[in-house]
Amino acid sequence: MNGSIGKQFLKSYFERTDGTFVQYLEQKIKEASEISPIPAQMLKRLSETARKGKKIRGALTTLGYQMSGGQDQEAIDQVSFVPELFHVGGLVHDDIMDQDNVRRGLPSLHVQFADLGRRLNIKTDLEHYGESLAIDIADAVFYLSWEILLNSAFDDTRVREAGKIYASYVIRCAYGQALDVTNIGILNFTESDVIKVLQYKTAEYTGVMPLLTGSVLAGEISEERKKAIIEYGTAFGWAFQIQDDILGIYGSEEELGKPIGSDIEEGKNTLLMLHLSQKGNSEQKAFLREVLGKRGISVPEIETMRSVLKESGSFQYVYDLGWSYVERAKKAIPAITSDSTYRDILESLAVFMMERAL
Amino acid sequence: MNGSIGKQFLKSYFERTDGTFVQYLEQKIKEASEISPIPAQMLKRLSETARKGKKIRGALTTLGYQMSGGQDQEAIDQVSFVPELFHVGGLVHDDIMDQDNVRRGLPSLHVQFADLGRRLNIKTDLEHYGESLAIDIADAVFYLSWEILLNSAFDDTRVREAGKIYASYVIRCAYGQALDVTNIGILNFTESDVIKVLQYKTAEYTGVMPLLTGSVLAGEISEERKKAIIEYGTAFGWAFQIQDDILGIYGSEEELGKPIGSDIEEGKNTLLMLHLSQKGNSEQKAFLREVLGKRGISVPEIETMRSVLKESGSFQYVYDLGWSYVERAKKAIPAITSDSTYRDILESLAVFMMERAL
Repeated sequence: MNGSIGKQFLKSYFERTDGTFVQYLEQKIKEASEISPIPAQMLKRLSETARKGKKIRGALTTLGYQMSGGQDQEAIDQVSFVPELFHVGGLVHDDIMDQDNVRRGLPSLHVQFADLGRRLNIKTDLEHYGESLAIDIADAVFYLSWEILLNSAFDDTRVREAGKIYASYVIRCAYGQALDVTNIGILNFTESDVIKVLQYKTAEYTGVMPLLTGSVLAGEISEERKKAIIEYGTAFGWAFQIQDDILGIYGSEEELGKPIGSDIEEGKNTLLMLHLSQKGNSEQKAFLREVLGKRGISVPEIETMRSVLKESGSFQYVYDLGWSYVERAKKAIPAITSDSTYRDILESLAVFMMERAL
Repeated sequence: MNGSIGKQFLKSYFERTDGTFVQYLEQKIKEASEISPIPAQMLKRLSETARKGKKIRGALTTLGYQMSGGQDQEAIDQVSFVPELFHVGGLVHDDIMDQDNVRRGLPSLHVQFADLGRRLNIKTDLEHYGESLAIDIADAVFYLSWEILLNSAFDDTRVREAGKIYASYVIRCAYGQALDVTNIGILNFTESDVIKVLQYKTAEYTGVMPLLTGSVLAGEISEERKKAIIEYGTAFGWAFQIQDDILGIYGSEEELGKPIGSDIEEGKNTLLMLHLSQKGNSEQKAFLREVLGKRGISVPEIETMRSVLKESGSFQYVYDLGWSYVERAKKAIPAITSDSTYRDILESLAVFMMERAL
């Protein structure tokens, strides 16, 4: 099976919910403006970035619900904004930590807010002002996501269960993020360290959390199904992150929404870099040391990196690893659902994660 | 009535819950260490700061519950950690925004984490590393607070109601914070701007949110009682913030937990500074311009500021304003409860807020 069913599932989720997402955001901007035009302006800018996401997590929330027998599409579509808002808030904090200045084709929020400060004629350091507002609006957005869940149409017990899952995975994500930020600085990491960071920081909250919250909103789930969803979601999330890392070097800037090679500039511990640092020949390793963490990497350097990663076998190694996670995800599907429609969507979605990395 | 009943109420809350608070924090540190020693270390340091708070918000949560007829003290004591954790997480972000390096007598967390990075031999910029981890651990703590609420012994409907209140006031707090950060930079603010910032940024989440969440956990509350709690809590919160501003200049470093005069150094828009900037004579205004926002203010300069604020009438003006909020809080009490024990605690607590400012 190829990824077209999965791709179509994501597309139809996006198209179905884009209008209500915008309506929701506009309502929140209006509420913020009742306090002051400043937070309203901040939320407006965040909304523009939020709308441009791929919305994989939102789509998985609805999938988790539907495959568990849930029938209230309007209600689950609304709750599907919860992981999307968490994700965009998390990216705002992440972009400060990583000093990333572009996100989804727009300036990162801390950059936009520094510009807002300039126009407001702020007297303090504009960069610091921008970062302060960016820290702050993400905090607001985290709580807006809780408001959505608590105001949803689902009954109290289901909401509470979903909230417990939501909280637990975000806590793990934050711990994983701390590990990631630290690893970048230390540089003596192993493959299992990197995979662990990917698990906590990305895989679980991308794959497991949305599917699981969606599922429990439909009703109680057995331990066996829960375990299978966790297995599928984690493997799905790993594949997702691996293709993200590959696209970060082999993709196009338009597709990626940020400059190609920014992972290299930030000295990120991707599996590609790790493999190259361990298995490359001395010339290849020297090249890696030269460019890793270097600000302002050039197009020829990126092209060299692309060739080097192919020649060293690093690309193939990581690409194969990504597909092995797709296989792992597929194996978990039978214990999740017996409905062939949802089995196909789950399988095709996992495949689609790696197909994008071609 | 004086503030002694209120002071005693706070003290007995603190003593009753300190042990369980520590137990709770140790359990969370243990869970974090299962992921990695890094987040465990971060949480450990946050715990030390968390324990040293005055815990007014925790105490008010239990008061709201008790005065509304709640009987399960163990359960409400546990939930009372929710606003405390939010508060400490918010302070961590606040200290980055304000570039405050001392909190509750300890180095601020971003400073502690820079030091942690030094010991871990982190290769990236240590200051930035410290701020990144501080942004991150507060995010984790926000979600830990939700975990507490959702895992509490209260029934699903009550938990959901409490959660809605919690989310709504934190969102307003974040919007108020944005306004505060912006006002500092712009400097053409009015008294009503400052009072508005105090309301959103401090008064509501300090006074209203804990009382209201505690109340709804005990059972449904009427619109009339709710309105009275909001009125009391807001006025209480204003008085609290005003005394905080006064102590920030007239208090002792030991009592304040950070250097005296840091509000002046940060160019904070307190009501004291505002009054002086508007009502001081030309010499007094010149002194204000000289020291406001100046890093490394000296002890003689602080002493001069104390005299100047007295001579200009600014101290008296703000002090009287604080007491007027105490009076306003007192007027709201009859509609909150008819129980004389709780009426006395509410009244004495409000008085105690300003008594500390003597």
